[in-house]
Parts: sequence; structure tokens; C-alpha cells
Amino acid sequence: MTPVAVDLPRAYRLLNHGPVTLVSSAYAGRRNVMAAAWTMPLDFDPPKVAVVVDRRTLTRELIEASGVFALNLPCRAQAEAVLAVGSCSGRDPEWECGGDKFARFGLATLPAARIEAPLLAGCVGWLECRVIPEARNEERYDLFLGEVVAAWADPAVFADGRWHFDAAPAEKRTLHYVAGGAFYATGEGFEVAAPGAGA
Amino acid sequence: MTPVAVDLPRAYRLLNHGPVTLVSSAYAGRRNVMAAAWTMPLDFDPPKVAVVVDRRTLTRELIEASGVFALNLPCRAQAEAVLAVGSCSGRDPEWECGGDKFARFGLATLPAARIEAPLLAGCVGWLECRVIPEARNEERYDLFLGEVVAAWADPAVFADGRWHFDAAPAEKRTLHYVAGGAFYATGEGFEVAAPGAGA
Repeated sequence: MTPVAVDLPRAYRLLNHGPVTLVSSAYAGRRNVMAAAWTMPLDFDPPKVAVVVDRRTLTRELIEASGVFALNLPCRAQAEAVLAVGSCSGRDPEWECGGDKFARFGLATLPAARIEAPLLAGCVGWLECRVIPEARNEERYDLFLGEVVAAWADPAVFADGRWHFDAAPAEKRTLHYVAGGAFYATGEGFEVAAPGAGA
Repeated sequence: MTPVAVDLPRAYRLLNHGPVTLVSSAYAGRRNVMAAAWTMPLDFDPPKVAVVVDRRTLTRELIEASGVFALNLPCRAQAEAVLAVGSCSGRDPEWECGGDKFARFGLATLPAARIEAPLLAGCVGWLECRVIPEARNEERYDLFLGEVVAAWADPAVFADGRWHFDAAPAEKRTLHYVAGGAFYATGEGFEVAAPGAGA
């Protein structure tokens, strides 16, 4: 599967339904990936996002050093990997899962187009982001804001600015994280009519 | 159904899976409710949340005046109401859906315990929030931070700090908003094992 570019004004649609994300980052030869459920769109055009990145993480260090990060949208086939990279730190090489998590868990990467951070292969959406520096948010709330400078999606599930999960295999559905190893898959799609729109 | 209190350190679990919310607010005899998909947990204990509230909305005016808001978590049975209150402004009484949206759309309310804002009846979760004033975020990004001071859930779908959608009627599932009138319901729940946790 070759990721297809998503028009930037539609990039918020990748995140709008609240899926769990994997935050990837790199700096000076180190790279990392962690799980983040606490992320949301912040603006349409130019698209912006918000994400919480704990100050104790290696990801935080790499983002602060590089000024960039990517939000990868994993699918159901990757739930074990989401839990794995979310359950250990790249800063603890003595842990069995520490060090380079990509290598440890056999996770393939794709190059990003606009930033120096790896994208995780097998995901169904990707948002390449540059940090919008807001020191007070970062220091006080672990809250990072980013401008989306490139966005990509798996055309099997996202086309014409919309997700199309119901027509794709179940393992390509995005994930919604609860706690522990518990997730919900994105469920059935449906449409309702606006008031006054007939019927 | 009588809402059951959710322990504050578990309140983030209500939002963790990324459902769409309805933001309710009130001040000096006016009240309003709008849809907000751009919201996320910001901290565990005390629990905090982040939500984007456009500067043109009546909700923004009421939140700024009162310093409080509630995040209501609607369920599938309420999808039409979510679209309705998200498609019009309480500031435009000449619109057919303007003025008091609760009255216009026949939406019943419950009293909040700790804040002066109505809670929307029929929802499956509620977070009562006090604004954490951060003027730069509000002015520059329409971004509001709040401390959760009380949280409630429908015990049919949330108990022991977890959602239990798979054992409840489908109309009680939470919603994930796409765009237009398109939603996804929260889907199938499943668990995966952490690396090293056996098997």
C-alpha cells in the first residue's frame, strides 16, 4: 500500500473521530514511537493539532530537540504494537522493550516527506507536524501544539476526505483506547439528517 | 436512569476513547449547548480536559462569563440531536433553530452538582468543568482548559471505571464525529496482552 496525500484542509478529518495515535520522533540518530490517546485537532487551515506528551518520555526529549513529530494512526491489525510501544520507554535500554522500539518490536517505517521523523508502516493515516512553540503549555500541562505540514492516508480506508471503514477489512479500522490492553475499534458508520433538511 | 458518580481519578476514562461531546453552558438566565469533537483529556488527577470553543459561539460567551462548562457524552440514540445543536447558533434567534436550543429541540436537562450549567439528559457520561484560565490559549487558539470537578455516567454502560458497551443496547454506544451528518458508533471492544505478559 502506498500512502496517498491528504489535502491539508481535510487533514483534521483523520483525527476528528478521536482515534488513538502513535507519536513518532527522531533526533541525532535516535528515534522513538509512543502511544498517545490524548490528541485532537486544533484548527482546520492551516491544520493544527494538540497532543499531550509526558515530560518523562524520550519522545518529549526528541520532539523538543527536533521541533517536529508525526501522529501515526494505527489500525486494528496493530493493536498489540500500540500496547507494546505504549507500555515501555525508549529511554530504558535495560528493559527488554527499551532502546529502539522499532527494532525491538519489528516495526517497519516509511520516510516522512516534510519532517525528520519516521512514519510507522501499516498505519492507515499519518500527520507530519511542526511544533508551534508554546512554552507555558509544554511546561505546565505537557501540552504540545503542532502545525500539520503533510498528511497521508491508506486509500483503502480514507478517500475523498473521508474514512470508509465499512467497505474495508475489519483489521483496517482505527482504534480507540480505553486503558490497560483494552480498546474499541471504530464501529459502524451512519448518517443523520440536519434539522430542516427534509423528512 | 440515575447518573452514578465517577471517581475523579477515573474521569479521564470517559473521554479517553475520543467520543464527540456536547458542551453545555449557562450564565445570567441564558443557556446553550453545542457539539464539540475537538476535546481530549489533559491530566489524570486532578482530571483536566482541553476543548476547542470557537470565538463566534454563544457557548464561548457563556463560558467566559461563567467560568464553567460541562462536557456531555451523547449516545447513538441522540445522534440527530448532536447534529441539530451543532448545526445552528444559540445567538441567532431568527434562525429556526436559534435561541434556546434545549427548548427548540425538546432536550431535557439534569442539574449539575458542582457548576451552574445544565447537563443534557439521555447522555451516557458527563464531566462538570471549571475553566483553568489561560488567556493566550483562549485568544490565540480558541483552546480552553478545564479542571473536572464532578463526573457522572450511565451505569448501564460505564461501571468500575470502564465502558461496557458490548453488554448494552447499541443505542447507548458513544459517537465519533466525522463531518456533515456522518458519525461512527464506538465499535467492538477487545483486549490485547502486553509484551511479556505470557503467551
